[in-house]
Amino acid sequence: MKLALLPVNVRIGDFEGNLKIHRTRVKEAVAEGASFLVFPELSLVGYLPKDLLTRPDWQKRAETQLEDFHAWLRAEYPKIGVVVGTTLATGATRGLANGAVFLHGAEREDRAKTLIPYYDVFHESRYFDAATALAESYRAPISFAGKKIGLLICEDSWHEMQIRGRKIYSGNPTAQFAGADLIVNLSASPYDQEKKARRRATLQKCATEVGVPIAYVNHFGGHDDILFDGDAFFVDAKGQLRAEKMEAGKEPLLLRLDGEIKSSRPLQDAGLRDLSTMLVTGIRDYAHKNGFRRAVLGISGGIDSALVATLACEALGPENVIGLVLPTKFSSVHSVEDAEELAAKTGLQKRHLPIKMIHSTFSMALSPFFAGQKDDATDENLQARIRGTAVMAFANKFQALALATGNKSEFAMGYTTLYGDMCGALAVIGDLYKTEVYALAAYLNSVQARIPERTLTKAPSAELRPNQTDQDSLPPYDLLDLALKLLVEEELGPLVALPRLQKEFPEADLTLLESIARTVRINEHKRKQAPPILRVSGRAFGSGRLYPLTCLY
Amino acid sequence: MKLALLPVNVRIGDFEGNLKIHRTRVKEAVAEGASFLVFPELSLVGYLPKDLLTRPDWQKRAETQLEDFHAWLRAEYPKIGVVVGTTLATGATRGLANGAVFLHGAEREDRAKTLIPYYDVFHESRYFDAATALAESYRAPISFAGKKIGLLICEDSWHEMQIRGRKIYSGNPTAQFAGADLIVNLSASPYDQEKKARRRATLQKCATEVGVPIAYVNHFGGHDDILFDGDAFFVDAKGQLRAEKMEAGKEPLLLRLDGEIKSSRPLQDAGLRDLSTMLVTGIRDYAHKNGFRRAVLGISGGIDSALVATLACEALGPENVIGLVLPTKFSSVHSVEDAEELAAKTGLQKRHLPIKMIHSTFSMALSPFFAGQKDDATDENLQARIRGTAVMAFANKFQALALATGNKSEFAMGYTTLYGDMCGALAVIGDLYKTEVYALAAYLNSVQARIPERTLTKAPSAELRPNQTDQDSLPPYDLLDLALKLLVEEELGPLVALPRLQKEFPEADLTLLESIARTVRINEHKRKQAPPILRVSGRAFGSGRLYPLTCLY
Repeated sequence: MKLALLPVNVRIGDFEGNLKIHRTRVKEAVAEGASFLVFPELSLVGYLPKDLLTRPDWQKRAETQLEDFHAWLRAEYPKIGVVVGTTLATGATRGLANGAVFLHGAEREDRAKTLIPYYDVFHESRYFDAATALAESYRAPISFAGKKIGLLICEDSWHEMQIRGRKIYSGNPTAQFAGADLIVNLSASPYDQEKKARRRATLQKCATEVGVPIAYVNHFGGHDDILFDGDAFFVDAKGQLRAEKMEAGKEPLLLRLDGEIKSSRPLQDAGLRDLSTMLVTGIRDYAHKNGFRRAVLGISGGIDSALVATLACEALGPENVIGLVLPTKFSSVHSVEDAEELAAKTGLQKRHLPIKMIHSTFSMALSPFFAGQKDDATDENLQARIRGTAVMAFANKFQALALATGNKSEFAMGYTTLYGDMCGALAVIGDLYKTEVYALAAYLNSVQARIPERTLTKAPSAELRPNQTDQDSLPPYDLLDLALKLLVEEELGPLVALPRLQKEFPEADLTLLESIARTVRINEHKRKQAPPILRVSGRAFGSGRLYPLTCLY
Repeated sequence: MKLALLPVNVRIGDFEGNLKIHRTRVKEAVAEGASFLVFPELSLVGYLPKDLLTRPDWQKRAETQLEDFHAWLRAEYPKIGVVVGTTLATGATRGLANGAVFLHGAEREDRAKTLIPYYDVFHESRYFDAATALAESYRAPISFAGKKIGLLICEDSWHEMQIRGRKIYSGNPTAQFAGADLIVNLSASPYDQEKKARRRATLQKCATEVGVPIAYVNHFGGHDDILFDGDAFFVDAKGQLRAEKMEAGKEPLLLRLDGEIKSSRPLQDAGLRDLSTMLVTGIRDYAHKNGFRRAVLGISGGIDSALVATLACEALGPENVIGLVLPTKFSSVHSVEDAEELAAKTGLQKRHLPIKMIHSTFSMALSPFFAGQKDDATDENLQARIRGTAVMAFANKFQALALATGNKSEFAMGYTTLYGDMCGALAVIGDLYKTEVYALAAYLNSVQARIPERTLTKAPSAELRPNQTDQDSLPPYDLLDLALKLLVEEELGPLVALPRLQKEFPEADLTLLESIARTVRINEHKRKQAPPILRVSGRAFGSGRLYPLTCLY
């Protein structure tokens, strides 16, 4: 039996288009000799349609789509077995299950997800009944080609999941398939930089415990802020990794189960290459799925905009990327030079639009009202907003997606101007700390040198007042980024986080850490209005992090 | 026994401050002779701390706060019974319950919520275990003053709740208290224009079914986008409404249970007065709880900004409201006159800042790049963004909260400029359809004439190109608003919605309705970056409506 694990890059709400993608994948896999085909979780409808799922008309469309697919398979490929993910109507309270459907000739078997995640970006408990609330049959193994096969959906294999040290599920859906010949896991598992290794370790442990081999397949592509890496792998009954995709991508993984499984190369995390692939995919999919082919951004000569511009050029082609050089009266000569060098090396469409005159006209108009008021950040924000308005004018005029260039350290600290540099349809590197921004830029330059050397080495500055550097307002980035990991990702209180910070930075004290925590807290209102941030960590600002804006904690 | 139903206006994360509010309420109620005091759901911690609840340090603080309150009560008021809402640590999977705690001298009884809502703004299934997952004792009645009293928390009384025609709960927590002397319901029930009547009908039905009187109490105040109206009422065992608060406000409701309950006045929904109170409270609480005392907004002479300015003046005092008159070259004379009349009548701080010069400087700078491109909305958006930037400069300089003036019809249709008129810390009337905006403005004028007559009667226009009116781009508002109610609030598909629309507007056809539905869909990305919208309907744009941005459905 030849197994095909088939990542798909579908669009939410595009029932016809997604069906077509499935048909194409089936044809290709059958042409390669596959007889048992597995698609990811909710492959037919996309992950996650959110409140669309509660619309009375939605499930009818999903059911029709599934029936169409079944009819087509039955007519064209009556002998192969296909497992596909979609929503299923139930009689339980939510009225819907997150289903895995086995199709084989006239046969159709419906199975459902048992562990319904409710944390981070997984809002599934809002929509789905657990299989345990349904008839026993929704958890039974299927039979195909003389084999007993258990179907699990994503979280079902993560029964040991902990949130901040607390185990969040009781029960273990894998255990019910002891004695089966094979388990397949259909996933919609958002990419993050650590995920690939965690997935393998988790599934290897499951396989070992139950003594059954497990095949795993994930989605590919960007869905708003969520990225899927198209991962697929096979673990044998002893927990050995026997075949795997080595890097992020939409390619299927095919393997012959009965004979010799092609032994895997040693696990070698593609790391920065995958990170780059996923961010490029995130830009491309958000643009193309929304009907855009161009992007526009401000390029300052700094590292953040240089990185985003480079990624955008890979995603859309440099001929489709407009880079605006928008010097203020405080911009240094080297900034403009660095921006121009970036444009030359990437081939993006550079436009030079100094904002000094606009800024002085605006300032003059405001000055009668501001006379006698003390100097503050108003003028810095004004310049950032003039730039944002310029970027948006280009976005409007050339139907280009505006890209925001803020990083996670900045979003955390509110070191960013709402309606200024925060303008954009997508915040490409908003889930990368400043230190990670440098690492990814260095990696991209190691492949092809496009980011100017000086951009990589000079001190970061917003250049919105004379001789400004980021470190006038912020702690050193290496210290800050570790502090943010402890406070934001691990959600520790300053008192608990302090000893761990001091291990690396003995000079850090509680006052500093409390001030960072407070700054993060009072800037929630900015993040509320941020563009969608491409998620590449386990805890990103955005749809998976629900915090009150008004808050004293 | 004298019962006190005690709305509170607390702050999330302010453990000390909230405790103080509770102590004050207790003192006041005892001074009035009350012996049984009931606070709303999660009264000690506020509704809803969201992901803060998952922090390891959170529950410790909440438990300490509860213990402090208990120690104080025991020392000061050992004889009274108090029911308070807070989070409770559990051994079940979520680790937390939404609790009602009864305190009486040394006695403490913990009870928990059974029905955990997961729809709209209620993200509770993300955080709380249901009482049914805990020991039986969490659902037992308490005993006080010889009475058996059942404690229910908000949704527990809404067991018949339906979402789009489907009943979403099994079980009925009220039924377990048959034979009790009294049931109290602690609520955190977001205000909407229909809620008051629905609450009474729901609780009256519960009381009738079980033959037990029910006392109800809700929060008061604004928490970001959510508003609480401070409602409280008492229904007897036959389902008769015997006492109630007549309008939104923070005042307690006290009533003597043993003697004659003061018979209620006939139910008389305060309607527009409550709506106005809640919006004013929403502005005031968002400002004050975040440390602001001033607000700033653009006033155009149109109805939306006139209404928001009037509400802001009530909330903060006209001396603290800055109204910017920002005429463009397309602004009519009457617009400026109307804005000035509004300023004169409300007493707000008017500032006159024509943007023509800034606009022409900006246009000139852009023109070399836009030569030969076709005319489109770029220039309209540019003007709106210059205005937004001006509003934000005042917000920065005077530490004023910027108020966005978009209404629900505009947010639905994307008839609003991102980073332009959408700038703001709060979208005050973003959950009112244009037709409701007129109704509320007329009501406010009936109390005190502040909105210019011409503002109420002239055709709405953005005035961003010559002779523009809203109806150049949008269907008539009365038709549009009904269509949006069907498509957005009831979430019907165009085919199902059409006959209902045609009942009122026979000229409407499917093409029109599909085009409206499509326009709503493709503007999700704007709403993603909108300010928090004060929620005054059962289905607002904002934190309770999770929709994909990229979507073809």
